Amino acid sequence: MKYCYGVDIGGTTVKMGLFEETGKILDKWEIVTRIEDEGKAILPDIAASILEKTQAHGLEKSEILGIGAGVPAPVTAEGVVNGSANLGWNYKEVKRELEELTGMDALIGNDANVAALGEMWKGGGAGQKNLVMITLGTGVGGGVIVNGKVITGEHGAGGEVGHICVNYDETDVCGCGNRGCLEQYASATGIVRLAKKRLAVETRDTVLKKESVTAKDVFDAVKAGDAVAVSVAEEFGRYLASGLINLAVIADPAVFVIGGGVSKAGEVLIPFIQKPYREKAFFSNREIEFKLATLGNDAGICGAAKMILDA
Amino acid sequence: MKYCYGVDIGGTTVKMGLFEETGKILDKWEIVTRIEDEGKAILPDIAASILEKTQAHGLEKSEILGIGAGVPAPVTAEGVVNGSANLGWNYKEVKRELEELTGMDALIGNDANVAALGEMWKGGGAGQKNLVMITLGTGVGGGVIVNGKVITGEHGAGGEVGHICVNYDETDVCGCGNRGCLEQYASATGIVRLAKKRLAVETRDTVLKKESVTAKDVFDAVKAGDAVAVSVAEEFGRYLASGLINLAVIADPAVFVIGGGVSKAGEVLIPFIQKPYREKAFFSNREIEFKLATLGNDAGICGAAKMILDA
Repeated sequence: MKYCYGVDIGGTTVKMGLFEETGKILDKWEIVTRIEDEGKAILPDIAASILEKTQAHGLEKSEILGIGAGVPAPVTAEGVVNGSANLGWNYKEVKRELEELTGMDALIGNDANVAALGEMWKGGGAGQKNLVMITLGTGVGGGVIVNGKVITGEHGAGGEVGHICVNYDETDVCGCGNRGCLEQYASATGIVRLAKKRLAVETRDTVLKKESVTAKDVFDAVKAGDAVAVSVAEEFGRYLASGLINLAVIADPAVFVIGGGVSKAGEVLIPFIQKPYREKAFFSNREIEFKLATLGNDAGICGAAKMILDA
Repeated sequence: MKYCYGVDIGGTTVKMGLFEETGKILDKWEIVTRIEDEGKAILPDIAASILEKTQAHGLEKSEILGIGAGVPAPVTAEGVVNGSANLGWNYKEVKRELEELTGMDALIGNDANVAALGEMWKGGGAGQKNLVMITLGTGVGGGVIVNGKVITGEHGAGGEVGHICVNYDETDVCGCGNRGCLEQYASATGIVRLAKKRLAVETRDTVLKKESVTAKDVFDAVKAGDAVAVSVAEEFGRYLASGLINLAVIADPAVFVIGGGVSKAGEVLIPFIQKPYREKAFFSNREIEFKLATLGNDAGICGAAKMILDA
């Protein structure tokens, strides 16, 4: 039996898993992400933790196929990151450093891409080889998988689906500097923005009229039948559908997997996205399925391990 | 030495080439496309022509690696077409029929995807493995190549870049039934539409004020310094750039290759597209190169042959 590690490096914690080559998870744990001093301790901390676990499980390095790791940044094919705001990193040769620190092979991917691979392997997209995962979190990330392989792109920026333009009339500026990016409407932050805009002009009574509103509040109110919240959800769904329609004519996947914090609202989300999608999608792509992500926080470690097992 | 055939099935003619496995073209010819009676003679005509050429060149079937063919329709991974308006076909098992008719292996692809493969092999994208080709003809087609492989998609509709939405305010309807598709602005027909709209409100003098205007007239006038034609070209470029920006955040190619009839205008086209692209592209994708296609009518047969050589 051979083994591998799946690592999901986030801005707060690093999630880690030890996998059998069969895909079975033997151990799962997390450590704190020390982002101070340009995040220089992050990779040494991960390496120390992995070496310790290898010993604790009585494994030899020769039994470890490698370490897969997802990071919140574009990653080149050589495993290089040119800066990650969340981790404090500037230019960093992640693959090389991690290999030197552990004496094991490493493969590095963008975290949203890696999560997509995880959902294809064991989650909402299981059994498919053409899928698009949309991660609706603080921002909107994604992974586009074609024939079982993630589109990494020439500059490590493949699948940056949060920056598809879905509104050429937008006046507010996205974090990237453009206007009208999907992220401005379909992220948790974007949903709050839509809710605030709606509340500013809304005359109907609604539970959303309170001090501060979250994306969760919006979907909780939708479930409680609040008409204003339904309007916000419809607007969210229309913009997300516009993004997915543009994705579909390019990648033509079998399934869209919707993940990230916003997707915790559950099945209530799907009709808001699927209805406008079906109305406007290019005819060849109209029947693409919509699924919720199912792995939650494990998508990253699973996808990271899968990179190694597929290599 | 082994050989293969590259076939490009168009609505008027079928272009064909006999290739050495080295990539050298030994022979190149074309036959008429007989689209009557639901195009039932097209594949038998192609098969007869191939068998005849095989004999004329003194080749044995065992020396032929296979036949690659591009068709103007979405094609499934199994080489099935579910209808091609240009060829008169309804459901057709193109791969199976061509193999039965010739006794040779066949691989079938969408014509725009196949042309992209040709340009990557021997044309404007030579040396690259991540490229997007945009074919600006009567419509707008395209091919998205990731790691050397065309994105075919789950329903054979990958790379249908002409139907990216670039204007959510459009009132005119695209051939596909939607509004605001790239094809409505960047095809030869779309450029004429933009020119007519401009001429209807234009007070400046222009050589475009005449009985009928073609896309070629517009770019000829641009070359002659006609200010109105420049305005039309700028509008064309802005919409095309919007489509490419959305493509880039998904596929992140190294190069955009611009082909099709409209691209015969030459290098004059590029700044009209590249300037608005660079202004608005997601920062990771801003430096993607723009190149003109160089193979012209040979892109299809080259790409079709390349499918066989890569198989």
